Amino acid sequence: MKFTKMHGLGNNYIYINLWEEQIAEHDLSPLAIDVSNVNTGIGSDGMITMGHSSVADARMRIFNEDGSESQNCGNGLRCVGKYLYEKGIIKKKNLTIETKGGLMHLELHIDEHSDVVEEITVDMGEPRLQRQQLPVLGGPKEEQALLQPVEIDQQTFHFTGVSMGNPHAVIFVDDATQVEVEKIGPLIETHSLFPERVNVEFVTAKNDRELDFRVWERGSGITMACGTGACAAVVAGVLNNQLARGETVVVHLLGGDLHITWNQDGHVHMRGPATFICEGEWYGHKGTLTI
Amino acid sequence: MKFTKMHGLGNNYIYINLWEEQIAEHDLSPLAIDVSNVNTGIGSDGMITMGHSSVADARMRIFNEDGSESQNCGNGLRCVGKYLYEKGIIKKKNLTIETKGGLMHLELHIDEHSDVVEEITVDMGEPRLQRQQLPVLGGPKEEQALLQPVEIDQQTFHFTGVSMGNPHAVIFVDDATQVEVEKIGPLIETHSLFPERVNVEFVTAKNDRELDFRVWERGSGITMACGTGACAAVVAGVLNNQLARGETVVVHLLGGDLHITWNQDGHVHMRGPATFICEGEWYGHKGTLTI
Repeated sequence: MKFTKMHGLGNNYIYINLWEEQIAEHDLSPLAIDVSNVNTGIGSDGMITMGHSSVADARMRIFNEDGSESQNCGNGLRCVGKYLYEKGIIKKKNLTIETKGGLMHLELHIDEHSDVVEEITVDMGEPRLQRQQLPVLGGPKEEQALLQPVEIDQQTFHFTGVSMGNPHAVIFVDDATQVEVEKIGPLIETHSLFPERVNVEFVTAKNDRELDFRVWERGSGITMACGTGACAAVVAGVLNNQLARGETVVVHLLGGDLHITWNQDGHVHMRGPATFICEGEWYGHKGTLTI
Repeated sequence: MKFTKMHGLGNNYIYINLWEEQIAEHDLSPLAIDVSNVNTGIGSDGMITMGHSSVADARMRIFNEDGSESQNCGNGLRCVGKYLYEKGIIKKKNLTIETKGGLMHLELHIDEHSDVVEEITVDMGEPRLQRQQLPVLGGPKEEQALLQPVEIDQQTFHFTGVSMGNPHAVIFVDDATQVEVEKIGPLIETHSLFPERVNVEFVTAKNDRELDFRVWERGSGITMACGTGACAAVVAGVLNNQLARGETVVVHLLGGDLHITWNQDGHVHMRGPATFICEGEWYGHKGTLTI
């Protein structure tokens, strides 16, 4: 089986081209587990398949390293855009991708001279701000959760709740790069205010166009990049009057920078890079070069 | 750059063929760090290069994921044997490989019908048993350390010290699969008896031909397979009269089985599998398909 490994700010997947490879439905989840295992497989956060869609330019499916299927992945979408264009599969600058979470729109930023896809903008849709949409308890379910207090280890943090399809608690702090994320993150993730748990973002506005950002991802812990979290951070910054609606904000994540804009039309746009790592032949259970 | 990923019982490296690839000496260590990173690279325990030797059939160099160079690796040697034969580079059943730790001898076990290298035996050399050769304190430096007591958390364990080039403390227990390796391993590794620290093996003789085995590797923690540790376990079992010299013992590691024989001539032979995972093109810092 042919495979490609790509990453978006360190968030890495094995990409499988289903226009060329045939994989039975019941083999997808076990295959994701196999290729993701760094000891006996290639090693990745999971596996993403790309193939025909009857409603979009392509269909993308995301399998986590435990074989479960995800609805969506902003970092993965950027990689899919670069893959489709640079492989010559779909030579368009504006793409629609079918995901389990709905249709997603991509815009490719292409160097005219080299034809390299340098960055990709993903329309991440509209944030949902009602408490019931995360969900977060502790107030009327149709109201926003703005700068709400949460007690952790006799310290009080103030979070703003934002759903980008998944729930985020964004906390503005003096220096996000100095927070003990691995200690405080899991305590907020599992706090009783969040019955479905929550992703936790620690954010510092260096100025009105630039955020330092650290994330504790629900179920994953510290990661190099969380696209929906970066979007949620900018939305929270606008709601709390630290950032301006319609302005592009550079978010500094562990894995690199994302450019986030909460447009006047309500949609959040995320712009960032995608990178080819390697590609080739996966031997699977054969394990040998000789047939 | 072309790469191959292989594993021996889960101990996995990126293999580079230096007969075909040219890499400057000062690029080897940074390249090992890059390819080993699972987020932005392929993901592995390190990188192994294979190329011309003026004193052996081939020369092998082992780089850890932090870029440092290792002397030797039993699991890696088995993979090198399979690679050289199945790629048609050296079509011999008995190979000599030059390593930083000295010349190593391999015997390939080949299915005559399919020409698949099914298993590989590595001559791991003679164990060194004097306390000063590990080193282990607490007794005359030229004597062996047999079933010596070490106090951990008000429990007394009895270890036998064996060097296979690297130091091992082998502890026979009632059920190796039930030991809290991640708790006890590091306390023994760093105990003051072992001034250069030590690899710690918990071993149970199920009968005189079969061992259960769990390992805490010095500097690495719990790993799926430790070839020198499996050899040390069998040597300790013979010294303590639980196993017979010259008999082949199956050692059950987390990653699979190794067959170990402490021959009458003093050499320890390790037989086990090697597996191709994938191979292809590594894009490195280019990160794009378009030049």
